Amino acid sequence: MERIEQHASHGGRQEVWKHVSSTLGCEMKFGLYLPDAALRGEKCPVLYWLSGLTCTEQNFVTKAGAQRYAAEHGLIIVAPDTSPRGDDVPDDPAYDIGKGAGFYVNASQAPWATHYRMYDYVVDELPALIEAEFPASQARAISGHSMGGHGALTIALRNPGRYRSVSAFSPIVAPTQVPWGKKAFSAYLGEDEETWKQYDTVALLQNSVERLPLLVDQGEADEFLEGQLQPQLLRAACEAVDHPLQLNLRPGYDHSYYFISSFIGGHIAYHAQALR
Amino acid sequence: MERIEQHASHGGRQEVWKHVSSTLGCEMKFGLYLPDAALRGEKCPVLYWLSGLTCTEQNFVTKAGAQRYAAEHGLIIVAPDTSPRGDDVPDDPAYDIGKGAGFYVNASQAPWATHYRMYDYVVDELPALIEAEFPASQARAISGHSMGGHGALTIALRNPGRYRSVSAFSPIVAPTQVPWGKKAFSAYLGEDEETWKQYDTVALLQNSVERLPLLVDQGEADEFLEGQLQPQLLRAACEAVDHPLQLNLRPGYDHSYYFISSFIGGHIAYHAQALR
Repeated sequence: MERIEQHASHGGRQEVWKHVSSTLGCEMKFGLYLPDAALRGEKCPVLYWLSGLTCTEQNFVTKAGAQRYAAEHGLIIVAPDTSPRGDDVPDDPAYDIGKGAGFYVNASQAPWATHYRMYDYVVDELPALIEAEFPASQARAISGHSMGGHGALTIALRNPGRYRSVSAFSPIVAPTQVPWGKKAFSAYLGEDEETWKQYDTVALLQNSVERLPLLVDQGEADEFLEGQLQPQLLRAACEAVDHPLQLNLRPGYDHSYYFISSFIGGHIAYHAQALR
Repeated sequence: MERIEQHASHGGRQEVWKHVSSTLGCEMKFGLYLPDAALRGEKCPVLYWLSGLTCTEQNFVTKAGAQRYAAEHGLIIVAPDTSPRGDDVPDDPAYDIGKGAGFYVNASQAPWATHYRMYDYVVDELPALIEAEFPASQARAISGHSMGGHGALTIALRNPGRYRSVSAFSPIVAPTQVPWGKKAFSAYLGEDEETWKQYDTVALLQNSVERLPLLVDQGEADEFLEGQLQPQLLRAACEAVDHPLQLNLRPGYDHSYYFISSFIGGHIAYHAQALR
């Protein structure tokens, strides 16, 4: 493990680390915000942030403006990369498959199955590393954007008790029904669509046992709203099983980090309340 | 003039515009944050932000997190590019001369003199455009980072009454005495060092008439502190002529946007008070 960046930020420190991931079989980077309390050695709760298509660990830490709120609430924020990386890792020229597009699944199909295991990385390896190496408590929350919103929701729903709270910005709520998800899941998981459902929020809600509330913000001017995101499917799925959902539709907002930065403060306050 | 980006942001709108600059003889882009009041047609005061070496109009608008504070205080923020641009504009392979490194001067030497007139662009053409085309009042403030902090301080000192307030992050306060400035001024202004002094904050302070206070934040872990920035020269110059200076030295902070984003809220509040 090696720290490759460190910057004082809002009284705490924004760092970037690299480490060899045994789950993914490659070197990985993640962003780590340590609030002042953590720098003094106090154990702090952790918010995991999962980014969207084409992102690395950099997008969230440079553009979301989350450090101010993490500092205010004494949260650590961990922002991993969105796929395995490196010359040995299979890729595809398209932006929505391969590197930068891990979709937070464990791939079962060649050539992806060896490295593309972002589900296990985010659920198991990364938290174990964070809790062993940094002043992190086991109080965890998870959030993300777009493909990462899909990752946050599915991971929270599949792991009852593991996260105190979950939220998402512009999530892909039904990947089995939309082009991004169908393309990625066909490649990573194969043609048996039954296997896709374990990574589909709307499908998972049908069998949800824990009633962890979902906080979701969605811009109404999002260019992917109709084609890929379809928040009405999430609303219907939650209503069908009486799963608590706060869905904030934000008029005029698009899919960009300008949207995230406008509302990340509210999400972090929400997680902080659950984590304390 | 053409709007090439628009994103809802903190209740207002972050835009990017391009236009043909007659001063610079090329097409230029600038970032424009319009708070809610401006979107409703109310005239709002304007903060001009000048970025540093290698930056475009994008760096500040994507990384500084300033929109939240501009929204809170009802300020427009205009963030121009740092040099003329385009295939016809002379350049240099080095990062600290040519494109991305206009140094906010009017060049007098070939091949730079035709296009490199960022001083006139920022002082005259850009404000005239903003005040004609957008709901901007004539209440102006100016700030910037590094090379742009140098630009903000020199432009405010040379134009008494034009700006209600000025501030800077990590400014190059004495370009005539440090490597970045000597290299750029030699190229743009020629070997007669007397002509350099009109673009040197420390030199200009010797003849300052207006007592516009200077607000400066400087990270003490800034990698350019000793070699290029030397805030002690600014402190001495202000003390020598009794010019009001608030110099905030920030332990642990570096030269990056993580530093700017940590303290931009205080600077915007300072400008808002002067502008109202």
